[in-house]
Amino acid sequence: MKKLEQLYEGKAKKVYATDDPDYVIVEYKDDATAFNGVKRGTIVGKGVVNNKVSNHLFKMLEGHGIPTHFVEELSDRETLVKKVDIVPVEVIVRNIAAGSISQRLGIPEGTVLKHTVLEYSYKNDELGDPMINAYHVYAMGLATPEEMKTIDDMAFKVNDILSDYLKDMNIRLVDFKLEFGRFHGQIILADEISPDTCRFWDMTTNEKLDKDRFRRDLDHVEEAYQEILRRLMGGE
Amino acid sequence: MKKLEQLYEGKAKKVYATDDPDYVIVEYKDDATAFNGVKRGTIVGKGVVNNKVSNHLFKMLEGHGIPTHFVEELSDRETLVKKVDIVPVEVIVRNIAAGSISQRLGIPEGTVLKHTVLEYSYKNDELGDPMINAYHVYAMGLATPEEMKTIDDMAFKVNDILSDYLKDMNIRLVDFKLEFGRFHGQIILADEISPDTCRFWDMTTNEKLDKDRFRRDLDHVEEAYQEILRRLMGGE
Ligand SMILES: Nc1ncnc2c1ncn2[C@@H]1O[C@H](COP(=O)(O)OP(=O)(O)O)[C@@H](O)[C@H]1O
Ligand SMILES: Nc1ncnc2c1ncn2[C@@H]1O[C@H](COP(=O)(O)OP(=O)(O)O)[C@@H](O)[C@H]1O
Ligand SMILES: [Mg+2]
Ligand SMILES: [Mg+2]
Repeated sequence: MKKLEQLYEGKAKKVYATDDPDYVIVEYKDDATAFNGVKRGTIVGKGVVNNKVSNHLFKMLEGHGIPTHFVEELSDRETLVKKVDIVPVEVIVRNIAAGSISQRLGIPEGTVLKHTVLEYSYKNDELGDPMINAYHVYAMGLATPEEMKTIDDMAFKVNDILSDYLKDMNIRLVDFKLEFGRFHGQIILADEISPDTCRFWDMTTNEKLDKDRFRRDLDHVEEAYQEILRRLMGGE
Repeated sequence: MKKLEQLYEGKAKKVYATDDPDYVIVEYKDDATAFNGVKRGTIVGKGVVNNKVSNHLFKMLEGHGIPTHFVEELSDRETLVKKVDIVPVEVIVRNIAAGSISQRLGIPEGTVLKHTVLEYSYKNDELGDPMINAYHVYAMGLATPEEMKTIDDMAFKVNDILSDYLKDMNIRLVDFKLEFGRFHGQIILADEISPDTCRFWDMTTNEKLDKDRFRRDLDHVEEAYQEILRRLMGGE
């Protein structure tokens, strides 16, 4: 498939048209942003890690019955995916309190949550991705109740599969963000699953192996991304 | 019943013990606060209006099958109520966008919402009453799923009854906040329903007849409270 004009440049990826309107090519950048774009920087090699990690996890999830946008890895930074109509609702799944939930609700970081928490935020950079609930989704017409039911079920299922899978790599899945899209009327998992969109903690040391190293000015940011790639794909 | 020691002084009311542990007396103050206590002032006569309006509406709701804490009005500012264990979740019901939802989600004030919006906030002054969802309620152990189901159902029912009732007084029920409590294992409606906790707009002119006049430094604050009292209880 041919890589045609750039359709969109986001904070972490560029999206290109192809000669088939059903497919786009995503290209992963090394650009890093945090706190709604207030903090900016570069994490050398991040684009390669996120591309490979995300594709690896999408393939694994497909094997467990989760439909995803993944089609084919084209290069270190480029992947062919199904072009979806993104549902502008970010879905956050939390197993352990960290980041915004700790700050907003006064739950100390590291607290195992009594109940898995699912949160939505309205994907809107200008408004700063505000937290919303299902009623806001319906009031703003962002998705239907049927779509949100599918999304919730898939998000919980991804959490179970992914938590289990990462345990074998000695990685604790603290929380993560998913994006879903519509492809010919069906809801499928899109965007990425990577150290940019998950909190991964080493199970033994609780060392952070994710974007929090960048957010919080910790050292060894690049090494953490490489370590995730190594643990997931060491054998490939 | 005897009014005994003060148990609690809140932003708008004082709560006193009685000689029966199942009952407390609430006393409504003229103190007004907004923006989590950042703005403070006095609205002369507010305590009397809120006491009478709230009792009037609670009686009306009881007549429609909603269990409330209301027992007996003792004076212009004092009411005997069932002492409940307050569920620390404020329930906000929105029919029309105004205030925080307009600001947070960019929905112009006055927009009729396609779907009634129900929001929760964690009743915690130190944290600024942050917005939460049902999963946060369970993760923090604030209430059980059964309790939240009862609360949701009651909140929607109150919205229907109250919107209908106020229509006859030419008042549009834009949004309101409810608090619920546990009384001998049963969830009942508690706290108050007043111009402090609702947005009331005149149906013809859209004039604000509620605490937004104080929040936004509009004139005729006291008159708006008196106007609500007059429309609801003019005949009594
Ligand atoms: N399969 C897909 N089809 C169409 N758009 C997608 C797909 N997967 C992800 N996207 C979108 O591509 C954009 C680029 O990604 P990213 O750089 O992460 O952007 P953002 O700055 O919005 O987070 C995002 O808006 C994302 O929602
Ligand atoms: N029936 C009741 N039993 C016990 N407490 C109640 C009851 N109704 C309301 N309360 C509580 O009384 C307190 C006083 O009211 P208020 O001045 O509005 O306080 P706040 O500053 O917390 O809003 C509130 O914490 C409220 O939740
Ligand atoms: Mg993104
Ligand atoms: Mg109050």
